[in-house]
Amino acid sequence: MTAQFDVTGIGNAIVDVLTHVEDAFLAEHGLVKGAMRLIDGEQAESLYKQMPPGVECSGGSAGNTMAGVASLGARGAYVGKVAQDQLGDVFAHDMRSGGIHFETAPSKSGTPTARCLVLVTGDAQRTMNTYLGACVELGPEDIDEDVIRQSKVTYMEGYLWDPPGAKEAFLKAARIAHEAGRKVSLSLSDGFCVDRHRAEFLDLVEHHVDILFANEAEITSLYQVGFEEAAALVRGKCEYAALTRSEKGAVILANGDSYNVPAEKVAQVVDTTGAGDLYASGFLAGYTQGRSPAECGRLGAICAAEVISHYGARPETSLSALVQELMG
Amino acid sequence: MTAQFDVTGIGNAIVDVLTHVEDAFLAEHGLVKGAMRLIDGEQAESLYKQMPPGVECSGGSAGNTMAGVASLGARGAYVGKVAQDQLGDVFAHDMRSGGIHFETAPSKSGTPTARCLVLVTGDAQRTMNTYLGACVELGPEDIDEDVIRQSKVTYMEGYLWDPPGAKEAFLKAARIAHEAGRKVSLSLSDGFCVDRHRAEFLDLVEHHVDILFANEAEITSLYQVGFEEAAALVRGKCEYAALTRSEKGAVILANGDSYNVPAEKVAQVVDTTGAGDLYASGFLAGYTQGRSPAECGRLGAICAAEVISHYGARPETSLSALVQELMG
Repeated sequence: MTAQFDVTGIGNAIVDVLTHVEDAFLAEHGLVKGAMRLIDGEQAESLYKQMPPGVECSGGSAGNTMAGVASLGARGAYVGKVAQDQLGDVFAHDMRSGGIHFETAPSKSGTPTARCLVLVTGDAQRTMNTYLGACVELGPEDIDEDVIRQSKVTYMEGYLWDPPGAKEAFLKAARIAHEAGRKVSLSLSDGFCVDRHRAEFLDLVEHHVDILFANEAEITSLYQVGFEEAAALVRGKCEYAALTRSEKGAVILANGDSYNVPAEKVAQVVDTTGAGDLYASGFLAGYTQGRSPAECGRLGAICAAEVISHYGARPETSLSALVQELMG
Repeated sequence: MTAQFDVTGIGNAIVDVLTHVEDAFLAEHGLVKGAMRLIDGEQAESLYKQMPPGVECSGGSAGNTMAGVASLGARGAYVGKVAQDQLGDVFAHDMRSGGIHFETAPSKSGTPTARCLVLVTGDAQRTMNTYLGACVELGPEDIDEDVIRQSKVTYMEGYLWDPPGAKEAFLKAARIAHEAGRKVSLSLSDGFCVDRHRAEFLDLVEHHVDILFANEAEITSLYQVGFEEAAALVRGKCEYAALTRSEKGAVILANGDSYNVPAEKVAQVVDTTGAGDLYASGFLAGYTQGRSPAECGRLGAICAAEVISHYGARPETSLSALVQELMG
């Protein structure tokens, strides 16, 4: 059956509030650099008050991935819960105007659209503080069976394990995808997120995931061993596992083979927000085009390099034109 | 009397929605490149729907100027009308967290915070579509006499002549400032804005303004003659007139003298949004420190160069550190 979509992403629909801070700001607020932590509405308000002026951009891990997929010219859909408010309108606009099918019913409960307060330090690291807002209302009823059946790959972020109903949505989507002979992909999202949900993630990787994305912190957190050992443990569990290691490149395990793909050169790393998300965009776009594992890895590396070369987590240039230029 | 504030800015409080478009997009929508046009709520919604994904940043001409004043380490206050909504919260946060005194009561009428849809083309030009929203509710009752009396300079954007009540606010503030022995400054904002309000602007320049900012399009529109002739006509009308000409630098007329100040070098012009606003930041910060006209012009040029070297209309780096580096 031909598919209407290459990739459908399911994730927490979040608007990022990006700002530059000194390392001292993180220390003052007891924040762990490079990590994502969950905060409630009051904490969000209090932290925001103390933050320097910012810039707002649509974000969310799978949302960023889908923006990348669209920029690569692939066909995408997205499932995520915003509220009927200004930031929800912004999020929906940025999805739809990018060419992504996005029809999840917005929340009417009065809980606002989710926000992530992203603190970027001078070393280009980002520290994320997420208020999940309306995302906690995402549930299995938000999964459109037709869309999942019509997608070559259904891609989900590990962060979906944080709100209560989203994991049900995830499992429902995975079941529908597999019943339709489609692929299921997961990003482990964040080392601390893996800590919170290790047992369930181990089960997911073992039984539900065809294409796994994890960085070094995440895969070592999953198996609680060093990188080489973790790579050996995940081998064979999924059809593909893309294990990314920042400037050291990525190891791609594919049907028993292993490929080392170097990182793409970047003149200046400005803000690492979205690196993993955009890696997944490139890899999945390549996968759905039937490219080789090494080519998928190269595509991932190119997209990640673009997004870390500027401020913000979504591409600022046409990724399809960039790929055309670099890979012909 | 010592002043509590160096500069108080009065303007339309606007959140910018920035996006990259091709020249064809402007042509399709009949937009004049480089200009600001006013649109209503319906037009804003319709244009937004057709725009590519964007980024939201606090904007507004005088708002941008005040962000620059604060970044230069000068003390500022701002008067402008937002609504009690998410974009209004963003605007207020960005002002206050930048160190600006901002206590204008927000609108509760249900009219949303103003938005400017900024379309940036490949040549770094910006084309602006402004929905004034809650700004139309700014009036003389929003002028805090104490703040104006306590400000060395009260700075206003010509765009205030577009909403109905704001000009009353402007004239009230100008009267209070002069009664307190303070200075009044005006930016002519935009050539088409000058077209809309020429007679009133001519009167303002003649009778109310001590420090005038205008680019080439604006000053030639004001007097409907060429640049040299316009410069001759404005000479002597105000204490200072800073006439900016993009990469050709600026002519500063000061108490009968004239200074040519070259533009600051920019490695790559990315987005000209905010160039004039930030020029005013530098000039006014210098003026309130008692610097010479040529030094004020240099400060203006440095700040303008910073803001056109990146996407968006507010500084991305500490302007005081930048000035320290370049001027010692």
